[in-house]
Formats: sequence, structure tokens, C-alpha cells
Amino acid sequence: MIHFNKVTIIGVGLIGGSLARVLKEKGLAREITGAGRSRETLELALKLGVIGHMGQGMRHAVENADLVVLASPVGTFEAVAGEIGPHLKKGAILTDVGSVKGNLVRAVEALLPAGVSYVPGHPIAGKEKHGVSEASGTLFQGAKCILTPTDKTDRQALETVQALWQAAGANVVLMNPDVHDHIFSAVSHLPHAAAYAMVNTVAEFNEGTENYITFSGAGFRDFTRIAASSPEMWRDICLLNGPNLVEMIERYQVSLNSIKKAIKHKDGGKLEKMFRTASALRRGLG
Amino acid sequence: MIHFNKVTIIGVGLIGGSLARVLKEKGLAREITGAGRSRETLELALKLGVIGHMGQGMRHAVENADLVVLASPVGTFEAVAGEIGPHLKKGAILTDVGSVKGNLVRAVEALLPAGVSYVPGHPIAGKEKHGVSEASGTLFQGAKCILTPTDKTDRQALETVQALWQAAGANVVLMNPDVHDHIFSAVSHLPHAAAYAMVNTVAEFNEGTENYITFSGAGFRDFTRIAASSPEMWRDICLLNGPNLVEMIERYQVSLNSIKKAIKHKDGGKLEKMFRTASALRRGLG
Repeated sequence: MIHFNKVTIIGVGLIGGSLARVLKEKGLAREITGAGRSRETLELALKLGVIGHMGQGMRHAVENADLVVLASPVGTFEAVAGEIGPHLKKGAILTDVGSVKGNLVRAVEALLPAGVSYVPGHPIAGKEKHGVSEASGTLFQGAKCILTPTDKTDRQALETVQALWQAAGANVVLMNPDVHDHIFSAVSHLPHAAAYAMVNTVAEFNEGTENYITFSGAGFRDFTRIAASSPEMWRDICLLNGPNLVEMIERYQVSLNSIKKAIKHKDGGKLEKMFRTASALRRGLG
Repeated sequence: MIHFNKVTIIGVGLIGGSLARVLKEKGLAREITGAGRSRETLELALKLGVIGHMGQGMRHAVENADLVVLASPVGTFEAVAGEIGPHLKKGAILTDVGSVKGNLVRAVEALLPAGVSYVPGHPIAGKEKHGVSEASGTLFQGAKCILTPTDKTDRQALETVQALWQAAGANVVLMNPDVHDHIFSAVSHLPHAAAYAMVNTVAEFNEGTENYITFSGAGFRDFTRIAASSPEMWRDICLLNGPNLVEMIERYQVSLNSIKKAIKHKDGGKLEKMFRTASALRRGLG
């Protein structure tokens, strides 16, 4: 059974807060300290009992921590790692919950002193509502959690973080950080970019005083829901996973071209075949 | 108050069945007859009390009907109109619930004999589950219903169909058939084509024995839910609204290009601005 003397969560939002709740509910940590940019969020987290202590500044918050969890926006990881690196104790484990790995993992790792183990992670969980008030100890139940150890990752630290996610009810998958980024450029980053592009395409048009978008039905709303996500966060993800995402956008444009061509040629058989393949695959996902 | 002696619904699925339920629950018709390709569906509709009579063949089913509703797949409209046209009584109203108007409206209208009024319609309603067993008299409550009269559409027939949809709780919007097709190529047909293209893009990749798609989260699932829709129906819609949809796919590709370009140039400001515009618009839709 894993047990930490002190865990520091940097960024106590939905994901960081939910992991804190798991630690508390399962009795996995003696002390849970929260840190982050927003004092208001930390005070709320304290009031809700998600964290037991509020860090006075990032450096102080990580002192003596056995486990530090980066759960702030992925665009802040390098800066935060640079700031806290020198203040981590020997033997501490640093992990994160960011949705980009690859180069970012290597950049963070390079900022850490010897004796600190970095175990990069990415739980595939979330819900429509954000923020610490939505945090729940059951958020990760049945979800996949991907860990992307590097050549330098300490085996024991990896096992500890793996045990933590298993305690949270997640199914841990080990993966190369670059493979991770290729997969998620396809299944997550591309759909977000595509949803933003879709809303912007339709928003150009007006019919009388009403924008075309006011005629949208449930399909359009489902399709574009993810375009309501945080623009700053997605800006950072797109930049951090740039080359993969550019590849995927280009592949997506090829796929759109096939449909466009079949429509232009009035090729009903081809259209139906493409739609049938996609439909069967999508139904399989539930 | 409108009242019909005999209404015939051709295609008793979710939409046709729900309109039949409205007619019955509001006491707007003495007789409701169902017709369509599938005898099984009609028997179920009869058993559920959605229709009161089952037509013995399409021609016979429309005889003496005051109102005939085309609610079969939009790809069948021309063939059905050609078949039933000569059998419609003088003074009958033909309406439909199809999601393509424009040229299709003109084609159907050309097949009707003098003395029959055609009032093209498109209720913006639906739900994930299809079929007559899902039909409900409240499906159209608060929904938009677009009517696209032509130069030939009889004013009184238009008012009658308008009153029917208002009785169903819908907000009726009158619109030119070609404007309708341009709007819906943007807000409905493009997202469907884009969702099919997205699933096919991601399906190309495998990681070990698992397809990338198995790593998809709630975002991807929301985004591609509409790709589970009927391939035949969407093949027909894409072909019937071809030129508009090709225009929209091209505009969408331009919007994707802007994102791709900003990523390539590492232009975070531009990316954030595009995402922020889309995000604000999307949040406004609820």
C-alpha cells in the first residue's frame, strides 16, 4: 500500500482536486497541500476540504513533499518546473496530468535536479464542468491513465505513481511519450481544432438579423461542444504538439477532400461506403 | 381551429410518428393513415396507436386525404411524389419534413397535378434514438419549424400547415427554399460530413493491437456522435444539397488552414484569438 507523508498539488482544478480527493478518501497522504496562481481557488479548495493546507508561494509549497503533482495548465509546466525544481527534496517524485508529453516531458525533465524522479502522466478523464467545486474522488474510476516514463524515470517512482492511479480506479497504460502525442493529436487535439474551425466557419454567415448558427440543431451543438473549452489551454496544447497536429489536420483535409470529390462527381456509392465505414466505427464506441 | 378529415403520413418514423401523435392528441384529424415501405413499422405504429389505419399501398393510402405528409427519407421524395401525385384529391395539401429544400422542392412541385398545394417544411427536431417507438407528441415543443413556400404555394394551404406546426408547439419560420439549403449546408450538413471525415481520419491509425480511437475521450465521442447517423440518409442529403455543401467544405478547409498556419508559425496570439471567438460564440448557444 502506498502512503505519502506530504503531497503538493499545483493547480487545484477539476483534475488536481479530484486526485486530492482520492488521496484523502483512500488515506494515502498525511498532508495534502495545494498551490497555484489563484488564491481564491486555493481558499475554496481548503473550504471544501479538498486540500488540507494552502501553500504560501510555489517554492514553499513543495518543500519536503514526497509527491508533487503538476495539474496547472500544460502551458505552465516548464515555468513551474524551473521554479520549483531547486526546492524539491532528494527522493521526491514529480508527476503531472498534462495532455501533451513528448518534447514537453524532455524539457521538464531537464529542469529537475538529480535525485528527483519525474513520472509523466495523463489521465483521460474530465467532464463538462470545470473547477475545484466539481472535483470528485470517483472521476478516474474506469478511466484510462497513461504514464509515459523516459529512460531516466526511476522504476520505483513509476510503480508508486502507477499504484496511485490504480487506487483512483484508473486503468494504467504505459506508453512512449512521442507515441502518446501522436495518438492524442488524432483523438483529442484534432477534434478540438476542428470544432473551433467549424464554429468560425458557420459564424461568418447571417440570414437577416439572425446568424446561421441560431438554426443549429442538437447535432451541431454536440459536434461543437468542445469549442467552448478554454482558448488559452488549447492554444498551448496546439503549440506544444504542433508538428503532430499539423499532420493530423492535413490528413483530415484529405478525408474531407474525398467526400467533396464524391459529392462533385455525384458518386453516391462512394459516399455511402465512406459514411458506412465511419458510422460502424462510431457505433462501436457507444 | 384546423381539422382534417383524413391525414396520411408516408414514413412513420420518429418525425412522422410524432406528428401523428400531435394530430391525435390535439384531436386535429378524424382519420390518420400510415404508409411506407416497411409493413413491420406500420404494424408497430398501429399497435402503438400512433396511426389508426394502415395503407394498402401508397396510392390507396393517399386517396381522399386532405393532408399528406412526406416523412420518409428525403432521397425518396421524388419517387414517392411521382407515384402518389395522380392519386391526390383536388384541394389536397402535400407537405414534407425533409432537411433539403431548394431544387428538391421544385422537382416535387413539378410532379403534382393542378389543384394540389405543396407546402414544403423542415422541423428542426430529433433525438438520438429513432423509429416510431420513440415518437412523442411533445417532440416539436419549442423547436423551430421552417416552411419554404414557393411562388405556386397556395396561401391558405400555407396557413393551414403553419397552424398545424404551431399546434405542435413549434415556432414557424418562413424562408426561401434556397436560403434554407444554404443555411443547413452550414449548420447541419457540413458537421455531418466533417464527423464522418473525422472518424475515418482517426480510424487509419493503430497502436499495437489497439486502434487510436480506443484512446478517445468524451470530447471525441461528443464530436463524432452524429457520424453514427444513417449512411444512406446522409448520402442522399449530401447529393441533394451538393453545391452548397461543397462550398461549405471548402470554407471549412480555409478555416482549418488558418489554424494550421498559425501552428506552423507558432503564432500563439492568432491561435488564441481564433479560439476565443469560437469559444464565445459556442458558449452563447448553451
